[in-house]
Amino acid sequence: MAISIAHLGPTGTNAETAALAYQGWLEQKQGKQSLLCPYPTIAQTLYAVAHGETQQAVVPVENSTEGTVAVTLDTLWQLDQLKIQQELVLPISHALLSRGTSLKGIRSVYSHPQALAQCQSWLEQNLSSVHLIPTNSTTEALHEINPDPTSAAIASPRASKLYNVPILVNNINDYPDNCTRFWILGLTPTTVKGSRISLGFSVPANVPGALVKPLEIFAKRGINLSRIESRPTKRSLGEYLFFMDLEVKSEHNPIDEALVELTTHTEVLKVFGSYQVLPLKASDIAKI
Amino acid sequence: MAISIAHLGPTGTNAETAALAYQGWLEQKQGKQSLLCPYPTIAQTLYAVAHGETQQAVVPVENSTEGTVAVTLDTLWQLDQLKIQQELVLPISHALLSRGTSLKGIRSVYSHPQALAQCQSWLEQNLSSVHLIPTNSTTEALHEINPDPTSAAIASPRASKLYNVPILVNNINDYPDNCTRFWILGLTPTTVKGSRISLGFSVPANVPGALVKPLEIFAKRGINLSRIESRPTKRSLGEYLFFMDLEVKSEHNPIDEALVELTTHTEVLKVFGSYQVLPLKASDIAKI
Repeated sequence: MAISIAHLGPTGTNAETAALAYQGWLEQKQGKQSLLCPYPTIAQTLYAVAHGETQQAVVPVENSTEGTVAVTLDTLWQLDQLKIQQELVLPISHALLSRGTSLKGIRSVYSHPQALAQCQSWLEQNLSSVHLIPTNSTTEALHEINPDPTSAAIASPRASKLYNVPILVNNINDYPDNCTRFWILGLTPTTVKGSRISLGFSVPANVPGALVKPLEIFAKRGINLSRIESRPTKRSLGEYLFFMDLEVKSEHNPIDEALVELTTHTEVLKVFGSYQVLPLKASDIAKI
Repeated sequence: MAISIAHLGPTGTNAETAALAYQGWLEQKQGKQSLLCPYPTIAQTLYAVAHGETQQAVVPVENSTEGTVAVTLDTLWQLDQLKIQQELVLPISHALLSRGTSLKGIRSVYSHPQALAQCQSWLEQNLSSVHLIPTNSTTEALHEINPDPTSAAIASPRASKLYNVPILVNNINDYPDNCTRFWILGLTPTTVKGSRISLGFSVPANVPGALVKPLEIFAKRGINLSRIESRPTKRSLGEYLFFMDLEVKSEHNPIDEALVELTTHTEVLKVFGSYQVLPLKASDIAKI
């Protein structure tokens, strides 16, 4: 039976491209069929797995320009039972799409706030006086502009083909190496040894140095912390949860021992999974 | 001459309420007159001070529910010359405003993405099937709904009075203690001894434990780290800047010594300011 995979829709979003890349890998490397299921928000994409509507979900975690996708971390902490099974990194190229024929005629630019933020310097330099209008997805931006030639949308070159809206300017993202990390989540942990472990924890409030001990536990064992994020507990200003990604370099890595020690220096500790990063080829992504 | 203060506009935003609270304090405690200058984005609010258009800016830093305001940290790091002069904390109460007379008739809800996020559980429980539409500010949301009775906006009770749109439901924020920290910035550092110091730094990439040393420097001196945030360098996925807030408890606090030691364990270190938290009274805020 085909594996059902939830993602942020509708068709044409970067999250769908990530889901398609994963779908291709599943078919080529594992011989498994899958079915993509679009959801209107990232939170609903994660709930879909937690509530058993789909078997997996593909969600963005962080972007190289705009940083963490807060709703993913907050929902993961809250839902508790979800496990990270894989990771994939997708290059993100933004294009300016419009039915207008020159930049001079553009009065409004629609896109998802993340995309607007990833192109903000380009927009200031080239369209400094236009009205920037946020939308729920890059695809929704295309629905807003059609067929007005004075408006444009920031979306992917793939969306240009899907919705038949011409590209006015390509590659308008401020940083050329713009890319987004996605996690593939399900209800069961992976059985293969992962190269990365992600976890979240809370520490006692207002204790000087409360974060030093958790960091020392990994540093003294030579375990690299590839990322640390803080998120509010939402109860009170100044109370935080911490999220960490650790690199697991060998079979002899004393990571289990470190995690046991970590429980004695944290209030609540949740391990979200030990997983591999999918080795996607640029040529495979280009075909999507 | 009146002090010019930039803030995110237009009139009716929570940033304007913060600026008004600061304006009231300036007048009552310092006998100084001031003039509020609305700007369309948070980045432009900060540029206004950097470019000498205004003398000060009031910008949000973090919210107790939704966390850091990334654009504030990113712009502060990039502009370099801005100094934090004061801080204030504003309670944020969201209301559902509409010309419609019952929740049943509402089909769309407009608001700033931060406000939509701060009310997401309430929206799921009470308006689960409506279309959520992001806007550039809570005030812009009010312009979108007027006069359609099937649409609503999330904005402040103050905006309800200013724009004459009735409150359908009050206090719809998911967490009752919802509040936002604001910084007041200018080109000169404060001369009074602050109770808080904020700084940002980069560490050598991919060195296990690179963040441990900076944290240890403060922990071993009993200096409490009240907040730590990571932001991407934007160059490459996995490279981060760190932002910290430190509590300065007494005149004898060895903070200067700690900052000197910190320079030897960081690549780039920027101290954004040593400042006091304004003691605002709830009764003063209620009058705004």
